[in-house]
Amino acid sequence: MLLRAVLGIAFLGVAAVSSAGPIEDQIKFRQGAYTFIGWNTNKIKAQLDNPDSFSKEEVIAAANAIAAAANSGLGALYGPGTDKGEGFRKTRLKSEFFEKPEEAKKVALQFNLEANEFAKVAATGDVGQIKAKFGKLTQSCKSCHDSFREKEAK
Amino acid sequence: MLLRAVLGIAFLGVAAVSSAGPIEDQIKFRQGAYTFIGWNTNKIKAQLDNPDSFSKEEVIAAANAIAAAANSGLGALYGPGTDKGEGFRKTRLKSEFFEKPEEAKKVALQFNLEANEFAKVAATGDVGQIKAKFGKLTQSCKSCHDSFREKEAK
Repeated sequence: MLLRAVLGIAFLGVAAVSSAGPIEDQIKFRQGAYTFIGWNTNKIKAQLDNPDSFSKEEVIAAANAIAAAANSGLGALYGPGTDKGEGFRKTRLKSEFFEKPEEAKKVALQFNLEANEFAKVAATGDVGQIKAKFGKLTQSCKSCHDSFREKEAK
Repeated sequence: MLLRAVLGIAFLGVAAVSSAGPIEDQIKFRQGAYTFIGWNTNKIKAQLDNPDSFSKEEVIAAANAIAAAANSGLGALYGPGTDKGEGFRKTRLKSEFFEKPEEAKKVALQFNLEANEFAKVAATGDVGQIKAKFGKLTQSCKSCHDSFREKEAK
């Protein structure tokens, strides 16, 4: 009975962490989410690079998409073991993500903060502020990539 | 000069439609976006299937993510030729999508409407209404899949 209780608790623990399902699904959902975020980031960059045709609506829509993704609970997709495995393709998450939980939490919170701040600034349509805050947002992406993502294979 | 002008116009046309870049990128961004939408849809279904642990916050976050994705201009990822090609994997978009533009527009607008309606209802926390509107939202997904998406290979 004790063994069953221990196993039960262990199982609950895993179930809670892996609410997004098998490791392969977590990695696939993660890759989908960040690809979606990347597409929206590209769109904002394209707008800022072409001030003559700047579309406030496009920037707002992309900013809202990034903020909603940042607020969607992506942390649930980082269950134990998801630094190895394949979703759409092999994950590039480094094992350091699990070895340095405090740093991982810090970069995650920073991304969430910058994404929500950026959505607020985008809504104002002030290009100067949008540009400044976009720099902060993409810096928060880079901080995480630098620490926890393998470089792309050449 | 006439030829150059004609080619120039043709090029602009392609450039405008393909603002998301090469066909492979459009397909990859599309697959990323719908994978992200699917993950959020799964989360809402899991909440509705488990009323004893229903989390209003999780449903709201997932609903906002789906609405923001629906509002993010996914149409730009359906440029000519994107019914053939590979993103993360081979696209399942049927050629009928380009042959029946009115029907394609109709299902796209319906998804957009239902996604935004659902986000409003999710914010109220009324489980009965959430369940009813979630049925409408997933029906709008299914309508498009039935018409324009190849069945998954067995």
